[in-house]
Amino acid sequence: MSEEKNPIGDSDELHEQLHEIEHLLARHKLVEALVHQQNTERQELIDGLIHRQNQNDLHRKLDRMHSADIAYVLEALPLEDRLLVWDMVRSERDGEILLEVSDAVRETLIDSMERHELVAAAESLDTDELADLVPDLPQEVVEDVFQLLPSEEQEQLRAAISYPEGTVGALMDFDMVTVREDVTLEVVLRYLRRFEELPEHTDKIFVVDRDSALEGLLTLESLLIHDPETNVRDVMKKEMMSFHPVDRAEDAAQAFERYDLGSAPVVDENNRVIGRITLVAVVDFIREEAEAEQLAKAGLREEEDIFASVWRSVHNRWSWLAVNLITAFVASRVISVFEGTIEKTVALAALMPIVAGIGGNSGNQTITMIVRAVAMGQVKADAARRLLKKELGVALINGILWGGILGVLAWYLYNSVPLGLVMTAAMTLNLLLAATAGVGVPLIRLRLGGDPALGSSVMITALTDSGGFFIFLGLATLFLL
Amino acid sequence: MSEEKNPIGDSDELHEQLHEIEHLLARHKLVEALVHQQNTERQELIDGLIHRQNQNDLHRKLDRMHSADIAYVLEALPLEDRLLVWDMVRSERDGEILLEVSDAVRETLIDSMERHELVAAAESLDTDELADLVPDLPQEVVEDVFQLLPSEEQEQLRAAISYPEGTVGALMDFDMVTVREDVTLEVVLRYLRRFEELPEHTDKIFVVDRDSALEGLLTLESLLIHDPETNVRDVMKKEMMSFHPVDRAEDAAQAFERYDLGSAPVVDENNRVIGRITLVAVVDFIREEAEAEQLAKAGLREEEDIFASVWRSVHNRWSWLAVNLITAFVASRVISVFEGTIEKTVALAALMPIVAGIGGNSGNQTITMIVRAVAMGQVKADAARRLLKKELGVALINGILWGGILGVLAWYLYNSVPLGLVMTAAMTLNLLLAATAGVGVPLIRLRLGGDPALGSSVMITALTDSGGFFIFLGLATLFLL
Repeated sequence: MSEEKNPIGDSDELHEQLHEIEHLLARHKLVEALVHQQNTERQELIDGLIHRQNQNDLHRKLDRMHSADIAYVLEALPLEDRLLVWDMVRSERDGEILLEVSDAVRETLIDSMERHELVAAAESLDTDELADLVPDLPQEVVEDVFQLLPSEEQEQLRAAISYPEGTVGALMDFDMVTVREDVTLEVVLRYLRRFEELPEHTDKIFVVDRDSALEGLLTLESLLIHDPETNVRDVMKKEMMSFHPVDRAEDAAQAFERYDLGSAPVVDENNRVIGRITLVAVVDFIREEAEAEQLAKAGLREEEDIFASVWRSVHNRWSWLAVNLITAFVASRVISVFEGTIEKTVALAALMPIVAGIGGNSGNQTITMIVRAVAMGQVKADAARRLLKKELGVALINGILWGGILGVLAWYLYNSVPLGLVMTAAMTLNLLLAATAGVGVPLIRLRLGGDPALGSSVMITALTDSGGFFIFLGLATLFLL
Repeated sequence: MSEEKNPIGDSDELHEQLHEIEHLLARHKLVEALVHQQNTERQELIDGLIHRQNQNDLHRKLDRMHSADIAYVLEALPLEDRLLVWDMVRSERDGEILLEVSDAVRETLIDSMERHELVAAAESLDTDELADLVPDLPQEVVEDVFQLLPSEEQEQLRAAISYPEGTVGALMDFDMVTVREDVTLEVVLRYLRRFEELPEHTDKIFVVDRDSALEGLLTLESLLIHDPETNVRDVMKKEMMSFHPVDRAEDAAQAFERYDLGSAPVVDENNRVIGRITLVAVVDFIREEAEAEQLAKAGLREEEDIFASVWRSVHNRWSWLAVNLITAFVASRVISVFEGTIEKTVALAALMPIVAGIGGNSGNQTITMIVRAVAMGQVKADAARRLLKKELGVALINGILWGGILGVLAWYLYNSVPLGLVMTAAMTLNLLLAATAGVGVPLIRLRLGGDPALGSSVMITALTDSGGFFIFLGLATLFLL
């Protein structure tokens, strides 16, 4: 753990720092260009001095910055400048900073490093941090680092890597303090004073028996407020949450939020303490989940570094466009079935996107409600009927209301009562379809064991587009021709 | 603060508990119905006994549950059952539980309570919690509670209410421990032992001077690991983050994440400590923000209790549908301009939604990237040109690629090369429009000081719909007639 750096905090201030670094970099590059251009001996000497001075400024600046802030600067710089700054960062901080940057940027940094630099960076980390980095490191670096670890940490690393993403095992760390229940607080206090530092974010100590089985929790608070003569047994909490490494991280995150936990022990099948989760790790998990969800909703496969190449961006986004192309093509084929009808009443071509579009929006509102309720654990698949009834009611009212307004508009614009009626009827039917699909799609996904949010929106839009065109043009064919 | 209850944690287990309560409730209502029906004296007595037994079961069950879990049960029950359970909850826990439930459910619970019950519930809370509840309480209840508070807390409550939502002031609490720098750790330890309990989630103590001005932070860790004879001055941290009550909560949340903070002091303009923010409060804020954003994206004005009445849901959703109706209507008018063209080449009616749809999807991908980069603080408005160049490149490639495929399909389906070429050109142009708008709309909103995410998606879709129809049908009118 490096010594603490001064955090900056305010985002404007952070941006200012970035500008300052960009400025220093520009000067640095300019001087370097000059050094290469001229080389009379004396000139070289002077330039070299300026150059060194400049580099020192940058070094000093970076040294004073918090790792998280350096990560921010690296993210915000284009590739070339990013690698320049990266070279100037003290190598003992490399590991920490690699943990802070996004996957896309991490890749560019690792690519620029030598094998021995990577090994040194990886070595400086705790095993749980190292486990996060391992998937991005070259195989031979991982092997080198592994050899360098003491055997207990080798064991921990092997365990940490083995837990799949999204489990408690992947979130936990191995830093914790354990005590026995038959000692006094005084003994615990003396024991703690032997530490150089406690594991980060320690808010409680785990009380275990001689087989490391969890017996209770001793909060730092109770350690501080009770008489030192008290026994641990008498002040420890026995009612507590503990997790297993195979538990879903999402469940653990919900428990942390629900019960305002600061940290919790992780135990194996024999109730032996093997690690802990901290709220700080949970917060990172929550933010990452939220981001992944947002990206997935827009059909972006992964985080995209804003300086990523055009080709890389095309690659990142293509699958979604392909899916949409297919659904749009299907909708287009539905329309083409009714080309004869449209030829006779061309107003239909102008009105049909309204029916499809409003259906899509309404369906997405329903989905958002349902997915949210599912995420909060309020809805299991058995609530389907009640929800469907409500959503159908909402759709019916909206259909008659908005469909009615549009019907009147269509009647007024095209001077045709039957067209207006078809419009109103089609709107209502498509909203009912949207409500049914909006309840049905996520709940069916849930029952099949999937994530109800994933792809639901695409499916609804596909249904309400093709369905909307079919309903509207179908009704028109029946009643207007 | 009530005594701690056993948390449940696992979401399946939680659902089981809900079922059990539903079961008990059903029995309770059945028995009650029987009691009302029959009333021979002896029968009444027996039924009464069963009834009471049943009620006791429910009471006991609820007493053992954590407040957060009771809140979950209340959320998941329909109104009638919800109020039945609410009546059975011990009144001293009312306040806590009201804090845990969602706004929509809170309203139904408060509506069902008498004035004196509400006053009692509110009184049991800390001032910062009370401040969260005040907006939902009837005016006369707030006045009553205010009269009952000691004058220091009246002051705190007035302050807490005065900070608008989204500021640090609205997140902070007033529970903290402060010490002076010129004492030894031993003195601090003795001082802490006089507490019944420390404020929840205390991980550090604030070191202040005689005017309450912040001088440093003393972590519980350093209190525990250092020799008690050490002076506070020698182990306190002087490099630290503190916040002002008017700071943006979003900035504070980012700082907490960035620097892995557990809690931080809040100071006034004279650097006097007036409160603190804890990571637990920040986590709540993050989750609420994420939820509000999701709702806003789907055009839902507020949280909707899943048992909300149909009318209430219609009301919650109407504004969005109205906005979409207007944008869809505009797109429809664009089409109607080209009715003559469509009449001659009816294939255009089938193909035009593809052009509009893919444009909308692509634009939304761009927006997601930009909004994300802005949220991470990587983009200020000045990066616009670089981003635009990249997005235009992506759009051009996608346009030629997907537009080309569609052009070939259109050519094949309708046996017309010019139609295929118009299709390809229209797709490319609409994707370029989508890229420009996808970069421009959020950055313009940002420069105007708004939230770049809000409503951007609607605007893009409106632009790519109307624009897509205009481009495609316009090109067709120029080149196909």
